[in-house]
Amino acid sequence: MGADYYTAEVQGPYERFELGSYTLDSGATLPEARLAYRTHGSLNAAKDNAVLVPHMYSGTSASMQGLIGEGRALDPSRYFIILPDQFGSGLSSSPSNTPAPFDRGHFPAVTIADDVRAQHRLVTEQFGITSLHAVVGWSMGGQQTYEWAVRHPEMVARAAVFAATAKTPVQNQLFIDVHSELLRSDPAFADGFYTDSDDVHLGLSRHAMTFSMMSTTYGFFRDEVWRRIGFAAVEEFTLGFMRGHFQPMDPNNLLRQAAKWRDADVSLQTGGDMRAALGRITARFYVFPFGGDLFFPPEDHEPDVAMIRGARLRVIDSPVGHFTMFGLLPEDVAAIDDALAEVLKS
Amino acid sequence: MGADYYTAEVQGPYERFELGSYTLDSGATLPEARLAYRTHGSLNAAKDNAVLVPHMYSGTSASMQGLIGEGRALDPSRYFIILPDQFGSGLSSSPSNTPAPFDRGHFPAVTIADDVRAQHRLVTEQFGITSLHAVVGWSMGGQQTYEWAVRHPEMVARAAVFAATAKTPVQNQLFIDVHSELLRSDPAFADGFYTDSDDVHLGLSRHAMTFSMMSTTYGFFRDEVWRRIGFAAVEEFTLGFMRGHFQPMDPNNLLRQAAKWRDADVSLQTGGDMRAALGRITARFYVFPFGGDLFFPPEDHEPDVAMIRGARLRVIDSPVGHFTMFGLLPEDVAAIDDALAEVLKS
Repeated sequence: MGADYYTAEVQGPYERFELGSYTLDSGATLPEARLAYRTHGSLNAAKDNAVLVPHMYSGTSASMQGLIGEGRALDPSRYFIILPDQFGSGLSSSPSNTPAPFDRGHFPAVTIADDVRAQHRLVTEQFGITSLHAVVGWSMGGQQTYEWAVRHPEMVARAAVFAATAKTPVQNQLFIDVHSELLRSDPAFADGFYTDSDDVHLGLSRHAMTFSMMSTTYGFFRDEVWRRIGFAAVEEFTLGFMRGHFQPMDPNNLLRQAAKWRDADVSLQTGGDMRAALGRITARFYVFPFGGDLFFPPEDHEPDVAMIRGARLRVIDSPVGHFTMFGLLPEDVAAIDDALAEVLKS
Repeated sequence: MGADYYTAEVQGPYERFELGSYTLDSGATLPEARLAYRTHGSLNAAKDNAVLVPHMYSGTSASMQGLIGEGRALDPSRYFIILPDQFGSGLSSSPSNTPAPFDRGHFPAVTIADDVRAQHRLVTEQFGITSLHAVVGWSMGGQQTYEWAVRHPEMVARAAVFAATAKTPVQNQLFIDVHSELLRSDPAFADGFYTDSDDVHLGLSRHAMTFSMMSTTYGFFRDEVWRRIGFAAVEEFTLGFMRGHFQPMDPNNLLRQAAKWRDADVSLQTGGDMRAALGRITARFYVFPFGGDLFFPPEDHEPDVAMIRGARLRVIDSPVGHFTMFGLLPEDVAAIDDALAEVLKS
């Protein structure tokens, strides 16, 4: 199953932007780097209706398509929506699809900045876009949104960050350490040199356990909210849904993304000065934490917002916590659509 | 180091109460079971000044001694304080100290009820006590306090539970699954048949990572509260302190305790009817959740308290969260002493 997961058959059709020889922040140069992406809608003549939507950890360019639809805030009849894949997504250059000498465990470390530099080339070179109507992202997608707004302030008119901070909080880094270690702890992982990701099923299953614990909220379990999603027993969610989500993925891909997430820090652009970094932002900036989120608690967003001119913070409450963005409850879908409408129409 | 940890040299002097042949809830019978304990102060002639203080996960009868002192709420000049060891503590019957056929990985599962039945024998047979002035416990010690108050309501005049619920919440069970799995994931664990616990240092270190993540609060890291405890860098807390705490312990001992914690449910006494179980309680019952606790959030205590006649709930706020009971900050020590004084003098 693992081998088929990162294909158009499973992920749906996608495009490839060839980056050629691409030097990463780590210093390593990928000889034939590739940025996968897909689009919805059409770029208008003025080229001013583009909305970029990077994705979260463990996702691909397919993951955020659920936000898009006629009559929704992200309406493809109105906006040209670009969905880029992260490095490590399995469709963009990744451990699972890169030939030697950068295959599997040899694939170099990547950064959020590496992603955004590549996306900038896609947006400018492929589409000739000089200004994005908005950048919208959740979780690691939100970290990429921060990177965009600080790195290319002149290009980002609006930004919406859902459940992500400008720098990964320490408690969240510890969570990443735990789920990465659970993945690596499987002897079949073999330092990243397994031949079939299915062989690492125990590590993938252990990794999923931590997401069962942290992806929603305490209230999700206390009030058995999983019943409203359609699960008859809690194990159908904690074991069934979560294992099912991660089981077909490639452990090296996940680990490269996880390390990127752990090290996310937009102030790396300004020598560690967060006030200077966030002071560069000129976008209309919206931050939407999720109430009870155990990855990025609402309180952790407040210092960021205080340093961004005119930024607005509004907590979206849902028992689903960090995974609110998946739209597992109908009111979550509506709340996110409302938030996106507020941003896109501002 | 591991071999020396469960000795009087490290743990301080303790006593042994021989339980003889002791049948556990699992059905297994330990031929020569032992309950370790220690006491402070003297039992008065009326035998009505005893306070029982069971301990938390990973602790021993030594762990709660920091609460005891002249002029403190738990004053040994006033109370006869009994500190029992859990099964699996390493001093009471445990995988690490039981001969074949119940040695190491063969040691049977134990329950909170097994502990409390043994403690009841200690209290009644060894000391002739028919009523306890109070039972006081934190975390797993709190779960044992619940078990006491429901199983022997006539013997428990007062009860103080710090950061524990009558049944382990699902989210907390998932946490236990994760830290147990990290411990077992070390190939040196060998299904519990290692010869030296030091050989399982990688599993012990991984297990400690999860406690670094969950034992305090988000604010503890956000506001760098670890500096106030005397750490110069966060890793001194997350790696140094936490690893140091768990590294000398025996993995099988920890896993037997963890399984007991996971399955804690005082309503097992009443066929799963929590209202009936908590309705038995006649003690003056006090519940003190810790604000921001990621093991047992304050909200999870409210349904329990609502089912106990006259029970009082008061949240003790500290950035240290679940580990507030360790008294790492001076105001935590004072807050816990105040809470204990309120209970013991009621």
